[in-house]
Amino acid sequence: MKLDEVIKQIKPLDKEAMQAAKERQDMLTKPAGSLGRLEELSVQLAGIQRRAMPGIKDKAVIVMAGDHGVTAEGVSAYPQEVTPQMVLNFLGGGAAINVLARHAGARVVVVDMGVANDIPSADANLIRRRVGPGTMNLAQGPAMKREQAEESIQSGIEVALAEISKGADILGTGDMGIGNTTPSAAIACALMNVAAEKIAGRGTGVDDDGLKRKISVIEKALAVNKPNPKDGLDVLSKVGGFEIGGLAGVMIGAASKHVPVMVDGFISTAAAMIAVTLAPECRQYLISAHRSKENGHALMLEWLGIKPLLDFDLRLGEGTGAALGISMAEAACKVLSEMATFGEAGVSQVVE
Amino acid sequence: MKLDEVIKQIKPLDKEAMQAAKERQDMLTKPAGSLGRLEELSVQLAGIQRRAMPGIKDKAVIVMAGDHGVTAEGVSAYPQEVTPQMVLNFLGGGAAINVLARHAGARVVVVDMGVANDIPSADANLIRRRVGPGTMNLAQGPAMKREQAEESIQSGIEVALAEISKGADILGTGDMGIGNTTPSAAIACALMNVAAEKIAGRGTGVDDDGLKRKISVIEKALAVNKPNPKDGLDVLSKVGGFEIGGLAGVMIGAASKHVPVMVDGFISTAAAMIAVTLAPECRQYLISAHRSKENGHALMLEWLGIKPLLDFDLRLGEGTGAALGISMAEAACKVLSEMATFGEAGVSQVVE
Repeated sequence: MKLDEVIKQIKPLDKEAMQAAKERQDMLTKPAGSLGRLEELSVQLAGIQRRAMPGIKDKAVIVMAGDHGVTAEGVSAYPQEVTPQMVLNFLGGGAAINVLARHAGARVVVVDMGVANDIPSADANLIRRRVGPGTMNLAQGPAMKREQAEESIQSGIEVALAEISKGADILGTGDMGIGNTTPSAAIACALMNVAAEKIAGRGTGVDDDGLKRKISVIEKALAVNKPNPKDGLDVLSKVGGFEIGGLAGVMIGAASKHVPVMVDGFISTAAAMIAVTLAPECRQYLISAHRSKENGHALMLEWLGIKPLLDFDLRLGEGTGAALGISMAEAACKVLSEMATFGEAGVSQVVE
Repeated sequence: MKLDEVIKQIKPLDKEAMQAAKERQDMLTKPAGSLGRLEELSVQLAGIQRRAMPGIKDKAVIVMAGDHGVTAEGVSAYPQEVTPQMVLNFLGGGAAINVLARHAGARVVVVDMGVANDIPSADANLIRRRVGPGTMNLAQGPAMKREQAEESIQSGIEVALAEISKGADILGTGDMGIGNTTPSAAIACALMNVAAEKIAGRGTGVDDDGLKRKISVIEKALAVNKPNPKDGLDVLSKVGGFEIGGLAGVMIGAASKHVPVMVDGFISTAAAMIAVTLAPECRQYLISAHRSKENGHALMLEWLGIKPLLDFDLRLGEGTGAALGISMAEAACKVLSEMATFGEAGVSQVVE
């Protein structure tokens, strides 16, 4: 299906289901509103899943990997070879996302969106959706062709739909790609029209010089490419990345099927900004798992108008925050469906 | 065992285990420190459990219930009969804490520390440790006798030790007691020497008049009773509650056995303040699950010097925040013990 047609399928949240969830929350044996964010979350999930009692049973975190030509500029503390090494670590179950997804009862779906070198694995769980062998250096020209940007989003949609057809009722997003805080910051700068220094951070751990270099690389990328903030595909193609486009596609695909998306940290939030630029209705389907330690993340979440659940100083990516957030979303659904009402439990209500 | 002897058993955290945990965190396949609060938590838990790889398998949330004579002053939005009704709801599995404890894989231990009326239940899971039929009205004199304060703490210690001997390697605290934000706020005011208006909040939902009334009740309680902030038992007996003393005892008992305590919201934090006044070393064994919506909670956490994990606008009590926090503590331990190291996974480290 064409991107435009998928976007057209994204409906506003179901107001009736939200109202019913809200009414039930007020009948449960607790002071109205006393479970705070969990109650809000349950109402949003009711609207997304279009039912008064939303449920989360089958959970998947989709981790998309891609490489970035901009690493040539020395913007990361790690060498590019780490991207495929970490993909193998994901497949082997030893990375942080594997541990935290297991803890949340979620499966990890690993997608090669365009790692520089072929990943030497016969693992059937590796989904190969390579758009190219890493992006071009965005400091010197567009990161990718417009058709590649479209392809990355299309692939993300297809990966999301495949997981949803297997039964997933929530998707988490995760990323792996050495250097990818640079394109993510560039996307945020382009869409929000703010200076690079407000957004760029230390990523996986560059020093002061590295941070300065990163800021000037982002400034150069914006000056050289002049991405058009009204055109999500233009921004993605000029200063984005294959895994970032893929994650934007995951969000659009999920929203088209009324499936909530738990958005991880900095890179996933940049992808969300692309998704919302292409499909504004998509925003209501997104839940921010956490505010990361990366510099501009709070501003990006404000721009999106979504409030993070956790504030744990995470800065790893991979979907680690999303896995924790998925567990909170599941807890929110369970409160709504499993708690006794005042009537059922024979508990007196508030003195009026 | 006498309270003094239990307190003497509380040791400082094991620095060697903490160092070993920190070193292992830095060998795991992620940038050092990139899991933020989860890493900090794993190191604290190593120090508490006195082993490089702390583990959380058997989890219990101890919910203590008690009534408060001060409800005669109209400080709560709910009638006192709700306390035993909610205890029955806990035993029946329909309350929020039951749902969230199940989600976290924790058992719920329900203790009657002094509900006004006998709880009509043959449920063997109800632990009866009644210190009295609710406290006296603290606005008119001491809430309880000093011997009752001691008894409540002693009971809390014994309940904690019993759960630990059954295998619990983390305890969460929870409370139920109509009116108990008033004694909790009074404890905080007495120990911190701050005005009632800085601490008192709306509890389960009093209106503006109710809040004014509550503030003047707390002022009166402090003026009438003159609790001595250097003497935790004096503060507890004059302006506390049976369940609050019980929870302070749980914390002291757990710390004496190197078991971490996940501290719930406002009431549990007041109990923590009593525990730390009696046994300063106890503080390092406490983890704050969340910052509640209740007014002075943030100040109380600052006074204790513990940083909350979640900020979900919870204001229910029962241990609901603690249940969510326990799941985070478990996740922190799993990261430390289940993630692959750089060497094991064949992943390159940072470019120096």
